[in-house]
Amino acid sequence: MKSIVSQLKLFFEPNAIAIIGASRTEGKLGNNIVKNLLEARFKGKIFPVNPKSTEILGLKTYPSIKEIPEKVDLAVIIVPANVVPQVLEECGEKDIRAVVIESAGFSEINEEGKKLEQQVVEIAKKHGIRIVGPNCVGHLNTANNLNTSFARLDMPTKGGISFIAQSGAFAVALVEWMVSEGIGLSKFISVGNKCDVDDADLIEYLAHDDQTKVVTLYIEGVKDGRKFMNIAKEVTRVKPILVLKAGRSIAGARAAASHTGALAGQDRVYDAVFKQCGIIRARDSEELFDLGRSLAYQPLPPSDGVAIVTNAGGPAVMAADVCEEYGLKLAKLENITKQKISSISPPWVVTANPVDLSGDCDTNRFTVAMKSVLDDPNVGGVIAIATMRALIGLEVIGALIELNRIYPHKPFSVALIGKEELLQQRKRLEKENVPAFPSAERAARAIAALFSYKRFKEKVGAV
Amino acid sequence: MKSIVSQLKLFFEPNAIAIIGASRTEGKLGNNIVKNLLEARFKGKIFPVNPKSTEILGLKTYPSIKEIPEKVDLAVIIVPANVVPQVLEECGEKDIRAVVIESAGFSEINEEGKKLEQQVVEIAKKHGIRIVGPNCVGHLNTANNLNTSFARLDMPTKGGISFIAQSGAFAVALVEWMVSEGIGLSKFISVGNKCDVDDADLIEYLAHDDQTKVVTLYIEGVKDGRKFMNIAKEVTRVKPILVLKAGRSIAGARAAASHTGALAGQDRVYDAVFKQCGIIRARDSEELFDLGRSLAYQPLPPSDGVAIVTNAGGPAVMAADVCEEYGLKLAKLENITKQKISSISPPWVVTANPVDLSGDCDTNRFTVAMKSVLDDPNVGGVIAIATMRALIGLEVIGALIELNRIYPHKPFSVALIGKEELLQQRKRLEKENVPAFPSAERAARAIAALFSYKRFKEKVGAV
Repeated sequence: MKSIVSQLKLFFEPNAIAIIGASRTEGKLGNNIVKNLLEARFKGKIFPVNPKSTEILGLKTYPSIKEIPEKVDLAVIIVPANVVPQVLEECGEKDIRAVVIESAGFSEINEEGKKLEQQVVEIAKKHGIRIVGPNCVGHLNTANNLNTSFARLDMPTKGGISFIAQSGAFAVALVEWMVSEGIGLSKFISVGNKCDVDDADLIEYLAHDDQTKVVTLYIEGVKDGRKFMNIAKEVTRVKPILVLKAGRSIAGARAAASHTGALAGQDRVYDAVFKQCGIIRARDSEELFDLGRSLAYQPLPPSDGVAIVTNAGGPAVMAADVCEEYGLKLAKLENITKQKISSISPPWVVTANPVDLSGDCDTNRFTVAMKSVLDDPNVGGVIAIATMRALIGLEVIGALIELNRIYPHKPFSVALIGKEELLQQRKRLEKENVPAFPSAERAARAIAALFSYKRFKEKVGAV
Repeated sequence: MKSIVSQLKLFFEPNAIAIIGASRTEGKLGNNIVKNLLEARFKGKIFPVNPKSTEILGLKTYPSIKEIPEKVDLAVIIVPANVVPQVLEECGEKDIRAVVIESAGFSEINEEGKKLEQQVVEIAKKHGIRIVGPNCVGHLNTANNLNTSFARLDMPTKGGISFIAQSGAFAVALVEWMVSEGIGLSKFISVGNKCDVDDADLIEYLAHDDQTKVVTLYIEGVKDGRKFMNIAKEVTRVKPILVLKAGRSIAGARAAASHTGALAGQDRVYDAVFKQCGIIRARDSEELFDLGRSLAYQPLPPSDGVAIVTNAGGPAVMAADVCEEYGLKLAKLENITKQKISSISPPWVVTANPVDLSGDCDTNRFTVAMKSVLDDPNVGGVIAIATMRALIGLEVIGALIELNRIYPHKPFSVALIGKEELLQQRKRLEKENVPAFPSAERAARAIAALFSYKRFKEKVGAV
C-alpha cells in the first residue's frame, strides 16, 4: 500500500480517538465533537482530554493525552490556536500519527497566524504526524460511524459518495442537505487550511477506498496544481471525480480570496485542467450531488443511445434538450421494442423515442415500456419521467426499484414531478440506488454524467 | 376595456359554470371537474350537465345546457370529441360566450380530428364563442376558487404568478409542485391545441389583471409569431413575462413535434425574439418558478449593485459567480455600512461584499448586517444566505420577514441551506413574499431576474 494511503487510513479507520479540548459545556465545540461521536455510535474508543474534567458525557476524561493508558490512533484538537503547538508535541510523544486540527486562528486570519501554522507544520514533520486542517470542521466515515464534526451533525446513510470540502460551514450544510434528501455518503472531510494533507492526498486515499464510488470536491483553489493534476489523472481512470469549483468569475474569485485565502486563479485554466484530467465539473451545488448520485449508484452505459420514457410530453422535451446539450444521442428504438409497447397501449401512445405513454398511462404500461426499452440493444441508459396521476400511483416506485435490480448493467435515472409527498418516494428510490429528481432536466443531467465519464474512459483507454 | 380582455374575463370570473359531460362515476374526468370545483369552494354557481343523471355530488344536474334556467357564463366540455359540435351549438343557443373544451381527439391525433377541430372553430365563430382548448386540462383562478382541471388538483395559495401552459400533464405536475413549495398562484390555464384563444390573447388578458404580477409560460411552439411579439412587447413594458421554451435542441424539437404537433422552429430565432420583446427565458422548469417568485414578490432594485450577506463563505462565492454570469455588479459598500457591521462583530468577520458574518454568527449579527446593507445607497438588492447552525436558529426567519416589511423598496432573496425542516421555513418565507431557495445559486439567479428586467425597462424607457 502506498504510504499516503496507509497514513490517511488512520484518519478514517482509527481504533481509538482522543478529543483534545473536549468540554463538559453544552454547545461548546469540544462538547459537540464528543456528542457527535457518541450519538453516531462510533465503533472505537473515545478518550476526551481536558485538564479540568474527569468525566465528559459519561466518558472518563484525561488531563493530557499522555495520561491515556492505551494506544491512540487519531487526535482531534479543538483548543485555542496558541495552545496547539504544545498539545501537538504531546501527540508526537504519545506516538500519534494522525491529527485533525479543528481550531481556527491560523493562516486564515493574519501574519501571526501564518507563523503559528508554520510552527505546527514543523512539529508535525519532526514527529511524522500527518495533519488535516487547521481551521476545519472535522470528518465523517459512515462505515464505522466516525463523526468528528464540531458542528452538531446527523450521520447520513451509507452510500458511495465521498466528499472533500474547503468551506466548513458550507460543507456541513451540504451534508445536512444530503441527509434531508436521503443521499448516501461514504466519507466526508473538511480540509480547512490544508497545511499538510491536501485534496490530492485525499483523492488518492479515496481511490483506494472500496466504499467510495465517486469522489466529489468543493474547492475554491488548489495549492499544488501539478500534484493535483498528476493524481487526478490516475484516479479518473478508475473512479469518477466531480468538482464544484467556486470563484468562476472575477467577483467570485475575489470573494474566495477573502474567504479561504485561496488564490482562485484564472478559471479557464481550471476548466482546461479538469477536462484534461477527466474531472467532471458541476455547475452548482445541487448539480454536484445530482451527478454524484448517478455516478455512485449506476453502472456505465453499455452502448451510446439514451431513451426517455414518460407519462407527460413536456418534461420529455425538456429532457431531450438537455441530452443534446450534453452530447447524448437519443437512441433509435428497434421495431420490436416499439411493437412491444404498442401491443399493450392505446393508439395515441408515441412509441418513438421519447416514448410518450400519455397521461392515461398506468403502472403496467409504464413497466412494460421500461422493460422493452431496457431490452433494446440501442439503448445504453434510460431517463424515466413520471408525473403522479390517478392511474399511475406510488406502485410505480416499486416497479422502478425492481427494474433496477433486473437490469443492473443499464443505468437509469428517474424524475418524479409534482406533489410534496414525492420527496419521500424519491428517498425510497435513493435507498435502492436509483437516483431520483424533482425535474426531468436534473434527471437528464445526472445520466449524462455517466455517458460523459464513459466517453472519457474510452478515450484514455481505461475501459 | 379591450374586447379580448372582456371576453377572457368570462373564463376567469364566471358567475355560473356548466360542466357538460359531468359524471357521477368516481375517477371519471367529468366527475373530477365537479369535485375540484366543490372542494376548491368555487364562489359561483355550478351546473352539471348529463342526460343520464339528475344529481352529481349533491348538485342538481340538467339533461342539457338548454334546460338550465339561469344565465351561464362559462361552459366546460368533457364529452367525446364527436359529440362536441352538437353541445357547442347548444352553448351558442344558450348564449354562452366562453367555452373550455377539455375533450381530446382533435388535431393532435389525425386528419379527421383536424377536420373536427375546424368544424368546432366554425360553430364558435358563428355564435361569437371564444374557445380554450380542445385537448386541455382546464384552468384555475385562486381569487374566486375556480378549478376546472380534469385532473384532481389542490388549489395553490393565492399569489402573483400566472401560468400559461401548453403541455397538460406537465402543467398539472408543475402546479402540484407549486403547491408543495408554497408558491402562490393567481391564474393557471392549460391552452391545449389553441384552436382559438392562444398564448398572446392570454398574455394580454393577464397584463390587465391586477392580481397577476408576472406572466409565466411553458411553450413548445408559437403559432402566430407576429401577434405574439406585438403583444409581448407591449406587456413587458408593464409586467415581466417569463418563458420556459422547450425544444431548444434538434432532438427536443422533434420530441415537441410528436408531442403537441407544434413546429418548434429554430430555437435561436425564439431566443432573439424573446430578447427583443424583453421576455426573460428560464433555463429549466425549476428556474421558471424560481425567477417567477422573485419577479412576483419583490420590487425592482432602486440602484445597480447587489450585496451578499452570509454566515458561510462557500455559498457566497457561488452566489458571486452567478451574479457576474448574469451581469450583476457586487455593490461597493460605504464605509459607514462596514463600520456598522464591524461594531457588533468579532474581528474575523468580513465586512466587504460578500459580507461573511462567519459560522459563529447569531441572529442579531445577521439582522444588523442586513439592515446596514439595506440602508446602503449603493445596494440595490440583497442575497441573504444562511446555513442553520447552533447560533443562528429559526428566529432568523422572523427577522427576514420583518426586514422585508421594513424595506419594501429593496428586493432580496434568501438561501436556506441544509436540513429537511428548512422546506417548512422556506414556505413560511414564501407566504410573506420572500422568495427562498435551498441553494445560494438559485437565490442569486432569482434576484438577477429583477435586475435584468429593470435594465430592459430602462432601455425601452418604460420605468
